[in-house]
Amino acid sequence: MEDFFVLVDKDLKKLELAIDKLITTKISFIKEIVSYIIKSGGKRVRPVLVTLSSKLCGYKGEKHIPFAAIIEFIHTATLLHDDVVDNAKTRRGFSTVNTVWGNEPSVLVGDFLYSKSFELMSQEGNPEILKTISRATTSLSEGEILEIIKTADIKTTEEEYFEVIGNKTAVLFSAACEIGAILGKVTTTQRNALKNFGYKLGIAFQLRDDILDYTSYDEVLGKRVGTDLKEKKVTLPLIHALQSASEKETSIVAKILKKQIISQKDFDRVSKFIETHDGIIYTSSATKKYLQDAKKHLNIFPSSRYKEGLLSLADYMLKREK
Amino acid sequence: MEDFFVLVDKDLKKLELAIDKLITTKISFIKEIVSYIIKSGGKRVRPVLVTLSSKLCGYKGEKHIPFAAIIEFIHTATLLHDDVVDNAKTRRGFSTVNTVWGNEPSVLVGDFLYSKSFELMSQEGNPEILKTISRATTSLSEGEILEIIKTADIKTTEEEYFEVIGNKTAVLFSAACEIGAILGKVTTTQRNALKNFGYKLGIAFQLRDDILDYTSYDEVLGKRVGTDLKEKKVTLPLIHALQSASEKETSIVAKILKKQIISQKDFDRVSKFIETHDGIIYTSSATKKYLQDAKKHLNIFPSSRYKEGLLSLADYMLKREK
Repeated sequence: MEDFFVLVDKDLKKLELAIDKLITTKISFIKEIVSYIIKSGGKRVRPVLVTLSSKLCGYKGEKHIPFAAIIEFIHTATLLHDDVVDNAKTRRGFSTVNTVWGNEPSVLVGDFLYSKSFELMSQEGNPEILKTISRATTSLSEGEILEIIKTADIKTTEEEYFEVIGNKTAVLFSAACEIGAILGKVTTTQRNALKNFGYKLGIAFQLRDDILDYTSYDEVLGKRVGTDLKEKKVTLPLIHALQSASEKETSIVAKILKKQIISQKDFDRVSKFIETHDGIIYTSSATKKYLQDAKKHLNIFPSSRYKEGLLSLADYMLKREK
Repeated sequence: MEDFFVLVDKDLKKLELAIDKLITTKISFIKEIVSYIIKSGGKRVRPVLVTLSSKLCGYKGEKHIPFAAIIEFIHTATLLHDDVVDNAKTRRGFSTVNTVWGNEPSVLVGDFLYSKSFELMSQEGNPEILKTISRATTSLSEGEILEIIKTADIKTTEEEYFEVIGNKTAVLFSAACEIGAILGKVTTTQRNALKNFGYKLGIAFQLRDDILDYTSYDEVLGKRVGTDLKEKKVTLPLIHALQSASEKETSIVAKILKKQIISQKDFDRVSKFIETHDGIIYTSSATKKYLQDAKKHLNIFPSSRYKEGLLSLADYMLKREK
């Protein structure tokens, strides 16, 4: 287990209990679906960020637990809706909710998790955190919508790509860190530092995701490799490769993205094309750059094991295999 | 135009401006979809309730406008998700968003509207209203989930039916009225009275909806008559008819509900069956009863044109044709 996981081990155990306790509903079907997806073993990266950030900021209470749970609920709601939008079959090595129960419960239980999160927040009575999370949730949906607008668009620029992943992924990482800062009642400078750390970490997390989708193996990843291409998502490895591609290569990729169904052979061809044009190397070095930048934001905090924890979490982003 | 609409005419004009102003996003595609569905002419019943209730409670400010807009956004988000869940083709005489742009934008713009609503509420800084709306939104999703659990179930009881419509419809009506009470800072007794008025009005609204789905015409309704049966929703007219049905009749209905696609002929057959067993008459008298009960809750308020407005809104529920 990674260092930072050991550091928050007790908190993560409390988190699991809180997740069970906070999902109150008379409808057992909802509980069944929520526990199916929440218990299917996410990495709990966002709750870890809430916890480490709050402790870095000297917070001694227990409120980081419900807020960590809420952040995980919102993340889970987006997964449920994503899987409907993408028509995904597997996630984390399990069949998706939409595959097992259909699209309807996937959409509606996602809605339940969103509403429940806001209901819980309204009971917590922390307006600053509420504002932070609700802004992040709006960005999240904007990012997802931008992503579908850019689907199959080989003219997608790096700037547009970073806008998509900034909204759909980085903003929630940023909010998770900011919650810690709000709980710890630190200065605005420290709060902004954590916010920026989270944002850049989130970008790096997504870059790594987009690399793994070309380079990993189904069994390791817990879902099909090549999913992004099959869903016609134009991610950085491909964007970079297209920048130095010949006209002929570009037209081949364009043709593949126009197909109804993208085959394994198509994927292999695009993978090879990305390799030739250093798409993975380029994305890896972008990941490194974002992580270095992210870590610098923590310089203003004094040394502590929680700071070490956040730094090692950043390093983990670069090497994680799933 | 109905009396109560005249009474809130100026407020509804402000509402339309607020709707445009509050949907801030850089993504023009979101604006396009939101204005397509919001401007397609809903009845604005929930905003009218917020407005009349707040004025009944002596509220003189302007905050009822953003909250009325928020309630309408949440309602619109549920419509977007409903249409995906039900695979609906038309609503309010227009093609549904999922038909024009596909399921993805329908799910994601619904999410955007939910998040935006909570973001706006977090900025308004009224924790009581936030709690009321977030609880209602959770109930709403629970109601929708209960409804899909009960799909095609001819054993659905009246009690279960009322639980579904209570959650999916009445709770938001109730919240709309409660917002008015909170803004007007009335006594707990008055607040509860408005809450109960809204709840019963919402039940009556849904009962009328479920009647019209059997008795109206496509052109009047703005969507296909018989949609509920085609979506295998077992509503009160059918539940009541089944209570006094012969074994043979029950088995015919059961067979129809098991079909992949329910035809016009099937619908005519079930309609006839409901007529024979007074399903519509029974549901109409239930509607009347709920409206009478609803109106009684307003007895504790002194006479005013806003009270008259709410009472005439209740009467409108009984006779509305769309």
